[in-house]
Amino acid sequence: MTRHDGRAADQLRDVTILRGWQEHAEGSALISAGRTRVLCAASVTEGVPRWRKGSGLGWVTAEYSMLPRATNTRNDRESVRGKIGGRTHEISRLIGRSLRACIDLKQLGENTIAIDCDVLLADGGTRTAAITGAYVALVDACGWLGRSKAIIDGVSAISVGVVGGLPMLDLAYVEDSAADTDMNVVCTHGGAFVEVQGTAEGAVFDRAALDALLDLAVAGCTQLAKRQNEALAGPLPAGPPPRSASAGGGR
Amino acid sequence: MTRHDGRAADQLRDVTILRGWQEHAEGSALISAGRTRVLCAASVTEGVPRWRKGSGLGWVTAEYSMLPRATNTRNDRESVRGKIGGRTHEISRLIGRSLRACIDLKQLGENTIAIDCDVLLADGGTRTAAITGAYVALVDACGWLGRSKAIIDGVSAISVGVVGGLPMLDLAYVEDSAADTDMNVVCTHGGAFVEVQGTAEGAVFDRAALDALLDLAVAGCTQLAKRQNEALAGPLPAGPPPRSASAGGGR
Amino acid sequence: MTRHDGRAADQLRDVTILRGWQEHAEGSALISAGRTRVLCAASVTEGVPRWRKGSGLGWVTAEYSMLPRATNTRNDRESVRGKIGGRTHEISRLIGRSLRACIDLKQLGENTIAIDCDVLLADGGTRTAAITGAYVALVDACGWLGRSKAIIDGVSAISVGVVGGLPMLDLAYVEDSAADTDMNVVCTHGGAFVEVQGTAEGAVFDRAALDALLDLAVAGCTQLAKRQNEALAGPLPAGPPPRSASAGGGR
Amino acid sequence: MTRHDGRAADQLRDVTILRGWQEHAEGSALISAGRTRVLCAASVTEGVPRWRKGSGLGWVTAEYSMLPRATNTRNDRESVRGKIGGRTHEISRLIGRSLRACIDLKQLGENTIAIDCDVLLADGGTRTAAITGAYVALVDACGWLGRSKAIIDGVSAISVGVVGGLPMLDLAYVEDSAADTDMNVVCTHGGAFVEVQGTAEGAVFDRAALDALLDLAVAGCTQLAKRQNEALAGPLPAGPPPRSASAGGGR
Amino acid sequence: MTRHDGRAADQLRDVTILRGWQEHAEGSALISAGRTRVLCAASVTEGVPRWRKGSGLGWVTAEYSMLPRATNTRNDRESVRGKIGGRTHEISRLIGRSLRACIDLKQLGENTIAIDCDVLLADGGTRTAAITGAYVALVDACGWLGRSKAIIDGVSAISVGVVGGLPMLDLAYVEDSAADTDMNVVCTHGGAFVEVQGTAEGAVFDRAALDALLDLAVAGCTQLAKRQNEALAGPLPAGPPPRSASAGGGR
Amino acid sequence: MTRHDGRAADQLRDVTILRGWQEHAEGSALISAGRTRVLCAASVTEGVPRWRKGSGLGWVTAEYSMLPRATNTRNDRESVRGKIGGRTHEISRLIGRSLRACIDLKQLGENTIAIDCDVLLADGGTRTAAITGAYVALVDACGWLGRSKAIIDGVSAISVGVVGGLPMLDLAYVEDSAADTDMNVVCTHGGAFVEVQGTAEGAVFDRAALDALLDLAVAGCTQLAKRQNEALAGPLPAGPPPRSASAGGGR
Repeated sequence: MTRHDGRAADQLRDVTILRGWQEHAEGSALISAGRTRVLCAASVTEGVPRWRKGSGLGWVTAEYSMLPRATNTRNDRESVRGKIGGRTHEISRLIGRSLRACIDLKQLGENTIAIDCDVLLADGGTRTAAITGAYVALVDACGWLGRSKAIIDGVSAISVGVVGGLPMLDLAYVEDSAADTDMNVVCTHGGAFVEVQGTAEGAVFDRAALDALLDLAVAGCTQLAKRQNEALAGPLPAGPPPRSASAGGGR
Repeated sequence: MTRHDGRAADQLRDVTILRGWQEHAEGSALISAGRTRVLCAASVTEGVPRWRKGSGLGWVTAEYSMLPRATNTRNDRESVRGKIGGRTHEISRLIGRSLRACIDLKQLGENTIAIDCDVLLADGGTRTAAITGAYVALVDACGWLGRSKAIIDGVSAISVGVVGGLPMLDLAYVEDSAADTDMNVVCTHGGAFVEVQGTAEGAVFDRAALDALLDLAVAGCTQLAKRQNEALAGPLPAGPPPRSASAGGGR
Repeated sequence: MTRHDGRAADQLRDVTILRGWQEHAEGSALISAGRTRVLCAASVTEGVPRWRKGSGLGWVTAEYSMLPRATNTRNDRESVRGKIGGRTHEISRLIGRSLRACIDLKQLGENTIAIDCDVLLADGGTRTAAITGAYVALVDACGWLGRSKAIIDGVSAISVGVVGGLPMLDLAYVEDSAADTDMNVVCTHGGAFVEVQGTAEGAVFDRAALDALLDLAVAGCTQLAKRQNEALAGPLPAGPPPRSASAGGGR
Repeated sequence: MTRHDGRAADQLRDVTILRGWQEHAEGSALISAGRTRVLCAASVTEGVPRWRKGSGLGWVTAEYSMLPRATNTRNDRESVRGKIGGRTHEISRLIGRSLRACIDLKQLGENTIAIDCDVLLADGGTRTAAITGAYVALVDACGWLGRSKAIIDGVSAISVGVVGGLPMLDLAYVEDSAADTDMNVVCTHGGAFVEVQGTAEGAVFDRAALDALLDLAVAGCTQLAKRQNEALAGPLPAGPPPRSASAGGGR
Repeated sequence: MTRHDGRAADQLRDVTILRGWQEHAEGSALISAGRTRVLCAASVTEGVPRWRKGSGLGWVTAEYSMLPRATNTRNDRESVRGKIGGRTHEISRLIGRSLRACIDLKQLGENTIAIDCDVLLADGGTRTAAITGAYVALVDACGWLGRSKAIIDGVSAISVGVVGGLPMLDLAYVEDSAADTDMNVVCTHGGAFVEVQGTAEGAVFDRAALDALLDLAVAGCTQLAKRQNEALAGPLPAGPPPRSASAGGGR
Repeated sequence: MTRHDGRAADQLRDVTILRGWQEHAEGSALISAGRTRVLCAASVTEGVPRWRKGSGLGWVTAEYSMLPRATNTRNDRESVRGKIGGRTHEISRLIGRSLRACIDLKQLGENTIAIDCDVLLADGGTRTAAITGAYVALVDACGWLGRSKAIIDGVSAISVGVVGGLPMLDLAYVEDSAADTDMNVVCTHGGAFVEVQGTAEGAVFDRAALDALLDLAVAGCTQLAKRQNEALAGPLPAGPPPRSASAGGGR
């Protein structure tokens, strides 16, 4: 069976990660995976939420959102509807948990890093692309802070699923819509699991299917880890200003 | 190692399921698992949401909520805050997906069943207790509708986690708070997976830990399936009124 | 004329009051009056709202809510609608005022007691049952605080109305719907009035009708006071933990 | 004892009712009672809410609000806060119920009359002034519709209370703040009760106090009925345009 | 061409400004311009918003709103809809900016003046009438504070537009609805511009039209400045209480 | 005087306009003006809002928003705050009015085009860049619909202001913050005005300053019109799919 875009079952879509794309942010990355495109920004503020003050620990939080026309038909803005939907909430929480797994909050000190993941174009796998891109932004933000040691491991994420009876890696939207089972997996660069979220969309799944999907996902995350490290190895293309020179920019 | 309440690592808390507890509902169950207590109601309405009309398919949806003082310290009501939190959204969506996995929406016909899971007392595992109880309410609601055939399999759910380095079944709140890894698993009575959601709370986890947790969870779900079937085998203790005689009740 | 459930015009429905039902709360009571069932919890927190600080006075507040399927047809959750309805607001305020009438806020000290009244099952008279049950929860919460002297009198409440031309006590839903005049009365155990709220639903009423309704209500409140005192006289069945041992419980 | 403004205990404040003050409305009245000033408008629309269609019955609804600086210190707008407070909800509901008591909804036909009561200046008794003024606006709106027969009785309202141990009529704000018991009473011109809402603010009250307050209130309402009838007897000072000539007006 | 109300193209509607109409406010004015009537109140509070503390500067802010039946057909309340519309926001911001242009915030000291402009009756030009009236209220509030020197210039505002090809001053609603171009102009008493907002409603406009409209507007503002100064020259008809005697008033 | 970035007073920042950047949209453009970057998407839907049905006329609407970290310090999302701010409302309305001025809604037929302008990076002039880019997206959306004739004129927009006493074109953020007068001007390609919005930020302005600013703005808009036409003259780089082949894309 061939996939709609000619990929093998265990093949990722093309991935590019551009650092420093949102210039004002302390860290940012524009990640593309096929036709999915997510802008990730890491914003540093001194201090932590009130419930955390005096603990010596930092905090990392995340918000995910989608532009109205990222998708094939336009979605109403959540700001216009006046409330955030369940899917948005769920993904924001997932991103936050995933990134907190790769950071030593004590090394971060009492600083807060807010991660914004805004989907500019959507073709499946937006939440996993967001995590993969956000990690790059987070690393740059920690560097900007002079706290690179707070990063204790890398994190990448990918979707897998059973489509037409076959386990497949990195589902595009048409595949995701047709999947019987859909799973999002977040791994450390070291190969451990941070999150495993498998859902029977059209059909329940057995242990063998679960194992096959996990194998695919772990291999996919390993490849993404390379892309992340390559992006981080280069110079900051349009890098954020050094800390002291953070000149104003705005409306 | 002994657990705080003397249970073995693979031992469930005591479970009781009382059917028909919320008399007006077409199906209802009050499930207790240790000191966790959830009231589940299944409400039948004719017709389906607009986007589904004319499809011949029914719909099952779910909402989860917690009384303000279900927990040890009081939580503000989401109605007072004017919005639903991310956790509530996430759990409501999980319950809905889990129950839709056990029902043939074509057999349900163009009817909607709304499942309400309100946590009256919370001591860990409220979302999985909600799913386990909601299945019982759903079966009764389908029976009330004369559409018992719509139920294609049973569904039960349990939490597992790694606490103090050891995999454990059915975490109470004190265990859940201390867990390195926390996983919620939803299984069919037939033993397949509906949902697997594993999260590294304090430490990432490897494949071996994942496998051990899945084994515990599957065994726990098998026991819960028995409790569900026992509850459903008995007569309806304070059953809902037959369809035609549904006399008014209210404020 | 016989009432639909065989009661005499001046007869209360069966009332039971179970203390300590919501274990985490400092005071709680599950009150049933016929098919109306309300869970009342009293939550103690140290300190008072900002506008009250330094006054030496405590504060008592109340919130009323109804589970979606407490009634014969399901009501949307106010949390989902994103706002609290007028009826809910009105009743919450009534409960708060009623309970503040029976407590010496100076004796309470700068502590706040939040009363939650959640209707689990509704068949008329939910607001008066809530007040009657909440008083019991409040007494236990004051006891837990070691401030039982703050309770200066008991409070109970009942609905009365003119149905089919006849004054009746403790209206069930079918009676309430058909009532020409509907009145809620809150009395102290000492026999004084705390609140009198009479409304012409279908027909205006004269002084004689008002007097007859007040007579019925006062007698009904006297009986309820006995039930409250009986409930409070017994040992706490599943009592709240003593203050120092308040062990964690939660989600 | 003398009242702060020299009135006798059973004396109303000066009342003036100006009809047609809000020219676009089908009925309107600016009522002043001492330093309390409320603008009441009755807006007619053809048709009724969906739940009422085909019933042959009309509908009357009411909304109460206060300008931010009607009171001595500025209150935030409810539109800015994004939600309506409990007090506003409670009063809006009271006004609506009171006016529906004086109208034959069948005679009104399937038309809706929305009553807006906006407090321009507040010095106690705003809710009862609103009811008293709204009745005048309602009568004019029915006349505009050619359905004057829908008015089956007049309605007026007044506050009473026990202040310094003495029952008093028509409390100004300083009296209301100091009252032990506060009661709002709505009467028909025929002398029957529509609403009786008595509240123990500072001290509970006995039957004798209740009786004294009701006597005062009934006498006060009788005087207000005269003022209403006098206002309605005159020509419409700045009357609404005849139905067919309702020329546009706007922003 | 004659205007619908017989005015010349460069003629204002009749303007009256009543000071002190909302007695509790530190400054207030009821301005009428034809059938447009706006109640403006200036409320003084000590202190400034947090972001301004310690700056030695005061703050002036404004909120605009319209009663539901100010217009020919009733508009839903923004408080009921739960959010403020774009038009309201836009006008509130315009009023605030316009008034801040006439005040020396240093002379005001760390005090805040909140301006409320509530449209009681609307027939075009409500935002400009609001600015013109609010200036009068602001002057009185500064006087009440003993800081009259903070007023550095007067401010008045008027609408102009091209209707039927002709530039016209002070559009009534029927004219505004038919205008090709609509412009609101805010001027100082000294003749400078504070705001110029021109909009092509039905047809784009050229420089000549723009110039003609500006000429009309400046002349109109000059006349309004006279009316404002006349109103301010007189004694305060129902003036606000002197600062120390600000006796309570309220609900 | 030299500008901070070396530009002459009447010099635009570098402008680039990339068409088709948001692939799912029927028209889209990513416009950059210096460090300001706005993604504009035009979404076509058949049909018009209810109030417009049967008129034969189409509708164009617009929404403006800013990513949280488009600015130098992070702004909270309006979706999280649960409401849209006044500035956002004001700009969305301005964009919508501006684009409706360049389109023949009759030629558009009963179709709706929703314009989304999302600011990815902000350095002053975001609202005018949004209008300039949105025009390009709108032209492509009309072409996609086969209704290019609906475009009756081009529209471009620019900011001007008096900074340090000198009129300047196309203000960057640091200039905008320091401006005494700030003006946004929207022109047709034909040279007429669509919107003129001048505001005295720090100092009021006279007719001469107004004239100088208008001259600068008209010249700037003429240059922007060229950039728009150049962008539209080229082939669609990553063009939207032809109408019938609009294959799904999504989450």
